[in-house]
Amino acid sequence: MTDLTLYIANKNYSSWSFRPWIALTAAGIDFKEILIRFDFPAGNPDIKAISPSGQVPLLMHGDVKVWESLAIIEYAAELFPEAGLWPQAAADRAVARAISLEIVSGFRALRNACPMNFRRPKQALPFSPEQKAVVMADVARIETIWRELLAASGGPFLFGAFSAADAMYAPVVNRFSAYQLTEDKGSLAYMERMQTHPAWMKWRDAALAEPWIVPEDEA
Amino acid sequence: MTDLTLYIANKNYSSWSFRPWIALTAAGIDFKEILIRFDFPAGNPDIKAISPSGQVPLLMHGDVKVWESLAIIEYAAELFPEAGLWPQAAADRAVARAISLEIVSGFRALRNACPMNFRRPKQALPFSPEQKAVVMADVARIETIWRELLAASGGPFLFGAFSAADAMYAPVVNRFSAYQLTEDKGSLAYMERMQTHPAWMKWRDAALAEPWIVPEDEA
Ligand SMILES: N[C@@H](CCC(=O)N[C@@H](CS)C(=O)NCC(=O)O)C(=O)O
Ligand SMILES: N[C@@H](CCC(=O)N[C@@H](CS)C(=O)NCC(=O)O)C(=O)O
Repeated sequence: MTDLTLYIANKNYSSWSFRPWIALTAAGIDFKEILIRFDFPAGNPDIKAISPSGQVPLLMHGDVKVWESLAIIEYAAELFPEAGLWPQAAADRAVARAISLEIVSGFRALRNACPMNFRRPKQALPFSPEQKAVVMADVARIETIWRELLAASGGPFLFGAFSAADAMYAPVVNRFSAYQLTEDKGSLAYMERMQTHPAWMKWRDAALAEPWIVPEDEA
Repeated sequence: MTDLTLYIANKNYSSWSFRPWIALTAAGIDFKEILIRFDFPAGNPDIKAISPSGQVPLLMHGDVKVWESLAIIEYAAELFPEAGLWPQAAADRAVARAISLEIVSGFRALRNACPMNFRRPKQALPFSPEQKAVVMADVARIETIWRELLAASGGPFLFGAFSAADAMYAPVVNRFSAYQLTEDKGSLAYMERMQTHPAWMKWRDAALAEPWIVPEDEA
């Protein structure tokens, strides 16, 4: 038995919390979760008190505190090498990390314009032409990544079995769906497989049951 | 012998190229480097042709292409476990990755206002009060990270010996110095140790010898 605690924020909105949560859950890793809900606009003092970066997700393991979603995944991957968080082949693992880091460092237009939101009725946003250009450039790069990896692995997930790379793109799947950002058959099929994964459905159901509205994230 | 080729951009300006370059060089890992210089404002078609993300750094190892600075470091760390790219203790490694990811995902105010630039005469920038507040908040978080880790490890670098975490903060050291962002003794001493590391001096000398001026990066 392990003694891992994952601190997260609102399931409906916290895309960074969702990533390690679904990675660990899909890999069958046991952990306790503690939800500290957003408290806008000031930011939540309970998050600031516990996390060195002032943000969640945060993993606690005995004395060890790990923040940053991808660092949490790396830590869990080292702790549970048999859980298959990363793909097995070194070359696949390298690409999985590269695309995970593209998510961490990039796609700001998409991330800013289209907050993750499980409760939102599916509907396209009325983008200005400039906004549309930058958001759709992000969408195009993401669809290239998905198409190439699904073709190479044969699916059902980016590297065959569900891995941390899929987890890093899970909030993007919600965005593509909630804001109707794609009509590509391959993308829609991948999104459907993601959205029917038991770990996804468990998070989504909890998100839908949350009573809290965060106006900043209602696009 | 390995057959690694690292594609980088201008040494004077390309902070993301600098990170894996100094990590691998300081660890004594042998690689070939190919510099593709910036070609603003359009972006360099040679970079777009070679890199899946359209950006450098990019590592080539036989058929394997690895992009994203931190993914390159992870790949090299797996290939050369004895090189000590990451700290040895699992808990240190977790924190090293967390602070590396803070660099990848954050500190945008500092990164945007103060581009890395080895040739710039050391001089503070005339910030507006709003700009100063956000840049100095980034500086404060970085100095907290440095102070706590140097105290815990005893130095000379963040986790004792030079590691990938120091490499991820190397461009920040240039910025603190070029734009005179700190007077903290501990920070200045860490910066001095970094700036006299042989790998740093090798990159810096090459940066100073470059003839190209990128107006976008001259703050
Ligand atoms: N780069 C970080 C981003 C974390 C982040 O932005 N977390 C948000 C929630 S999704 C947060 O904690 N915000 C704090 C607050 O608003 O009080 C990661 O990958 O973990
Ligand atoms: N998140 C990426 C950032 C890479 C990046 O921004 N690279 C810049 C150079 S420092 C680039 O290639 N720009 C392409 C261009 O301007 O043509 C990483 O960590 O490697």
